[in-house]
Amino acid sequence: MTEVLELAKRLMSAHSVTPATGSVFDELEAMLEPFSFTIKRFISGHGETGSPEAPVENLFAVRHGPAGSKHFAFAGHLDVVPPGGGWTSDAFAPQVRGELLYGRGAVDMKGAIACMVDAVKNVPAEAGTISFIITGDEEGPALHGTRALIDFMREAGHQPDLCLVGEPTSVNRLGDMMKIGRRGSLNIWLTVEGTQGHVAYPHLADNPIPKLVAMLAELDALVLDQGNDWFQASNLEITDLEVGNPAHNVIPEAAKARISIRFNDEHSGASLSEKVAAIAEKHGGTTLPIISGEPFLTPPGEFSDIIARAVKAETGVDPEPSTTGGTSDARFLRAVCPVIEFGLVNATMHKRDEAVAIEDLSTLSRIYARIARDALT
Amino acid sequence: MTEVLELAKRLMSAHSVTPATGSVFDELEAMLEPFSFTIKRFISGHGETGSPEAPVENLFAVRHGPAGSKHFAFAGHLDVVPPGGGWTSDAFAPQVRGELLYGRGAVDMKGAIACMVDAVKNVPAEAGTISFIITGDEEGPALHGTRALIDFMREAGHQPDLCLVGEPTSVNRLGDMMKIGRRGSLNIWLTVEGTQGHVAYPHLADNPIPKLVAMLAELDALVLDQGNDWFQASNLEITDLEVGNPAHNVIPEAAKARISIRFNDEHSGASLSEKVAAIAEKHGGTTLPIISGEPFLTPPGEFSDIIARAVKAETGVDPEPSTTGGTSDARFLRAVCPVIEFGLVNATMHKRDEAVAIEDLSTLSRIYARIARDALT
Repeated sequence: MTEVLELAKRLMSAHSVTPATGSVFDELEAMLEPFSFTIKRFISGHGETGSPEAPVENLFAVRHGPAGSKHFAFAGHLDVVPPGGGWTSDAFAPQVRGELLYGRGAVDMKGAIACMVDAVKNVPAEAGTISFIITGDEEGPALHGTRALIDFMREAGHQPDLCLVGEPTSVNRLGDMMKIGRRGSLNIWLTVEGTQGHVAYPHLADNPIPKLVAMLAELDALVLDQGNDWFQASNLEITDLEVGNPAHNVIPEAAKARISIRFNDEHSGASLSEKVAAIAEKHGGTTLPIISGEPFLTPPGEFSDIIARAVKAETGVDPEPSTTGGTSDARFLRAVCPVIEFGLVNATMHKRDEAVAIEDLSTLSRIYARIARDALT
Repeated sequence: MTEVLELAKRLMSAHSVTPATGSVFDELEAMLEPFSFTIKRFISGHGETGSPEAPVENLFAVRHGPAGSKHFAFAGHLDVVPPGGGWTSDAFAPQVRGELLYGRGAVDMKGAIACMVDAVKNVPAEAGTISFIITGDEEGPALHGTRALIDFMREAGHQPDLCLVGEPTSVNRLGDMMKIGRRGSLNIWLTVEGTQGHVAYPHLADNPIPKLVAMLAELDALVLDQGNDWFQASNLEITDLEVGNPAHNVIPEAAKARISIRFNDEHSGASLSEKVAAIAEKHGGTTLPIISGEPFLTPPGEFSDIIARAVKAETGVDPEPSTTGGTSDARFLRAVCPVIEFGLVNATMHKRDEAVAIEDLSTLSRIYARIARDALT
């Protein structure tokens, strides 16, 4: 058994459905200690279990290079989504069948964290500073995960020059895609208040639904942008409608809707919130925006070149720089330093029988080592 | 105490929140017996309490005139809407305070039924046939109320020539309005099916909400008609929206709405259902129409003249023939014979401290007697 496979199995054996604390971090700490890392673990969030404020564990590990050397950071998460039913083998008892290792977190992203740890042995201590920014809450509300780690790093004076997030970005084969950016995410609750009344006497009522319908028609027709070199066009979806009026003969007093916008770097959460609020107001409505994340972009250049060279050397593949898909903790880390995501094949992420090719673990370990060495020179 | 006030108090003392059975019908039966009516009482509906199929009581009473004489029918309901809270005196303990009699059903419409009964003593038996068509379910689903009475009458060969419904049609003072027609009522459930998906990958989903929004915008812009001599314009209200999607990042798989149309005699429930179905289909949706009632109109003529003369003689007022407002059991009785509604002042109907002027009860009794005598000649 290769060393990286062993590391992956140890992490995957620890139950760590989001939000994660405890044993899975014990495992990671034990793996990093032989490499002389200084390790800080802390619990953030002090709310009730099951609430967005529930406690989560965070870990920051750093091995300092010579004075004045560069600082390269690996970032990721040890929490996983719930396994769901129907697994061939226990989701938390990793099992090798043929050329694959099965278990929750195989690709998203305990497998990648095992590769990061394994890569360290191939990065000389004198090359520079290496750190691990690892949270137990990326799959959940993420209120007390990477945000808290960034706060800690700022206070303690840890400032990486580049940061690689190990999300599973590969699509068909290891190395075919890296994420140099992600769209922002914004949800807005829309409300129109009216005056309740009887349908037989509409002149005594003020039906809020036609106003909401006109507002939604205008929002649905919005063209936010045409996309640009690195991003697809921003997109608005109406995700919910709610009146909750069981009485056939009653004009309701309020009508509500919710929209979700995934937006590129031509907008900010605030600029879109304002645009939608103006349209809502025109139709007599109000808005409550909640910004889940701003977009980020690390334009192709030095960092993406480092990654592309490493991938090419180990796989022969040229990784496509992409900004598609959902959000990740890169939305927070963007505030620290240039950040790019690169990791395993995502075909089975969040699914039953999540699995990683054992060969990919070895290859990704070598890619990560190349990236770290190159980033530190 | 006048006799008609005593009759009203007896009916109002009987609890009869819709659907009504039992004691309130016992009272009415006891009141009619001295006048030699033949009385048929029966229970319709055999479903569970609280369901639209719950049992309701119906009463048909007839006093036959000489062979070949005309047949005049009084129609109405003994059920009442729930009292709600905040009454000054018990809703089912009728109380005289000043010139008013307070209690649930005072105007809608136990008071009017008391007037009908009281009127009989002033209509000679030889004048013709008089009947009472009285249900315990007009305020509820009305599935087993007047419909069942009409079925019974048809089978038993009872065919009125004219029918007066005692709904509270007066607005500011007794006699100022009669209803010669009512609009029809139609509710339509609208559904658009789509394909669920993640908001970050809209090309893999099919959001049903924009289609529903476009459909509703088109329906809301419809001008059904301009009204006509006897009816106001038909009106469409959107009364409910429902998606029920709690997940911010999910495009839902279905979206639903409900509309309510009050329509005049330029349409039928079927013609409007077809029109809406065509618009729904254009936007990828389907419809489920439920017709609550077709419009009815008894155009001004002999019957309205009889009522107007009686009202004028007793009050000096010329009643306005109107077709405004909600639905009543006249929507069913229209199939039997010409029908017009005339009754007490509706200012307090369905409200807390429902009340009738004691003087109005005496006056309405005399008006009803005049109408019956005139109708039978």
